[in-house]
Amino acid sequence: MSERYDIIIVGSGPAGVSAAINGVIRNKKVKVFGSKHLSDKLEKAPRVDNYLGYHAVSGPELKDVFVEHLNQMNIDITEEKVDAVYAMGEYFAVTTKDNTYEADSVIVASGVSNKKSLPGEEAYLGKGVGYCATCDAPIYKNKKVAIVAYHKHAEEEANYMLDVASEVYYVPVYGQPEKIREGVKVIAGKPKQILGSEHAEKLVLSDGEILADGIFILKDSVALDQLVPGVDILENHFNVNRNMETNIPGLYAAGDCTGKPYQYLKAAGEGQVAALNAVSYLDKR
Amino acid sequence: MSERYDIIIVGSGPAGVSAAINGVIRNKKVKVFGSKHLSDKLEKAPRVDNYLGYHAVSGPELKDVFVEHLNQMNIDITEEKVDAVYAMGEYFAVTTKDNTYEADSVIVASGVSNKKSLPGEEAYLGKGVGYCATCDAPIYKNKKVAIVAYHKHAEEEANYMLDVASEVYYVPVYGQPEKIREGVKVIAGKPKQILGSEHAEKLVLSDGEILADGIFILKDSVALDQLVPGVDILENHFNVNRNMETNIPGLYAAGDCTGKPYQYLKAAGEGQVAALNAVSYLDKR
Repeated sequence: MSERYDIIIVGSGPAGVSAAINGVIRNKKVKVFGSKHLSDKLEKAPRVDNYLGYHAVSGPELKDVFVEHLNQMNIDITEEKVDAVYAMGEYFAVTTKDNTYEADSVIVASGVSNKKSLPGEEAYLGKGVGYCATCDAPIYKNKKVAIVAYHKHAEEEANYMLDVASEVYYVPVYGQPEKIREGVKVIAGKPKQILGSEHAEKLVLSDGEILADGIFILKDSVALDQLVPGVDILENHFNVNRNMETNIPGLYAAGDCTGKPYQYLKAAGEGQVAALNAVSYLDKR
Repeated sequence: MSERYDIIIVGSGPAGVSAAINGVIRNKKVKVFGSKHLSDKLEKAPRVDNYLGYHAVSGPELKDVFVEHLNQMNIDITEEKVDAVYAMGEYFAVTTKDNTYEADSVIVASGVSNKKSLPGEEAYLGKGVGYCATCDAPIYKNKKVAIVAYHKHAEEEANYMLDVASEVYYVPVYGQPEKIREGVKVIAGKPKQILGSEHAEKLVLSDGEILADGIFILKDSVALDQLVPGVDILENHFNVNRNMETNIPGLYAAGDCTGKPYQYLKAAGEGQVAALNAVSYLDKR
């Protein structure tokens, strides 16, 4: 049986790490999934003036003080990409490529993707288009699969898929692939749209097209209702109340994934509110 | 005609100063009412661990970095106590003892009072019990007035009342008065309750009682619906949505006065959200 956490936090931006700090201060057993660099967005911010307490700092400087805060409290970040959070009734199951973790409550602070959908992506979602190649691999046994990859972690999924599918086409939007298995067909070109009839049939590129039975779009953040089946979504964000509660008891959300304004301080404050309400939820059980 | 501000902010705790910073960054003409020490609560906090970016700091240390942030942005705090915020339709009128200010939008970040009401205080509110001696002074011309003072700024109100009322009793709960006029009767003792029939008639102390036509309770923060007539209150806090909007267009609230958890980071995040939504409101006009 897997280890049971009090609170699993999905995401390591300001909302996620603020939630972690507050959960740990309240003596909860907390696990954070994300990146040791915390947040791509923060790492790329040239200057931040509106995080109260830090004026005229760079994003990386702000990231460093957040990392220092985590270090002082011995909070570690697990670098596994969360594929899905399942509400199991009495607990939550959080799946990554290789593992399943359990927790009594979950705080999703997964941010928002600034990548626009491809034309056809949403129309064919679940009809040949998916966001998790490893999850859906069994469906594509001996079939043709195309993978549009926005980050290098997608290489693992392509390599895995090669054991299952008859052909694997890999379109690395992020640049040159680093560790791709022989047999995966790496295709240059910019993805333009997905076409089909009842079911997705081909991925159109800037220069050519790929016929495929399954097309996977691997972004950093997946659609929120794909990440958490059954969760209530409002205008592409988690529908939360002022306590950062979602429609699923024990499931909270914080930060950009709950809506605008997309700001670090707003996110950090929400992470705190989510964690303190998760603590109340746990203590009432 | 008085000067018109874009945003008036009532309160200088983390919510108020965060709102100020965000309003100024968006090039709005902002005025903040509060204390140059920002917040009594923060000044008295022995240790803060959960403000993301600052671990194991004292309240005064955190206050100092907030003051430094304000200084770097040349944001000044006006040390006048706001008595009321009136929604005038097209604008807001914000009154202090000596002045009236105008603004197109207002953010109330007045905190919460941790002082319990006296028995009888709420029952007789508006029936001989009030929170603003200078506002109601004309009613008590040549009558007896008792003032229960929780802070030394109340001394000014007692001194002023002496010109109007026939007798002024002053009960300084905070300690020894500093600048009280001769003629004001300073009474030692702890206020216990307010008694009367249709109307409040006496203030009962731990040791004795004071017969009075008017009894003023001067706390740092007044009841929120006294501060903002017509505002919607939910369980003793401003009823706000996730945009920190109240029921009055252009009026926002942030921080402890909007509800628990009472936390600095939550308050600062809400101040940011309130300010950015006030900016949108102003830009749409």
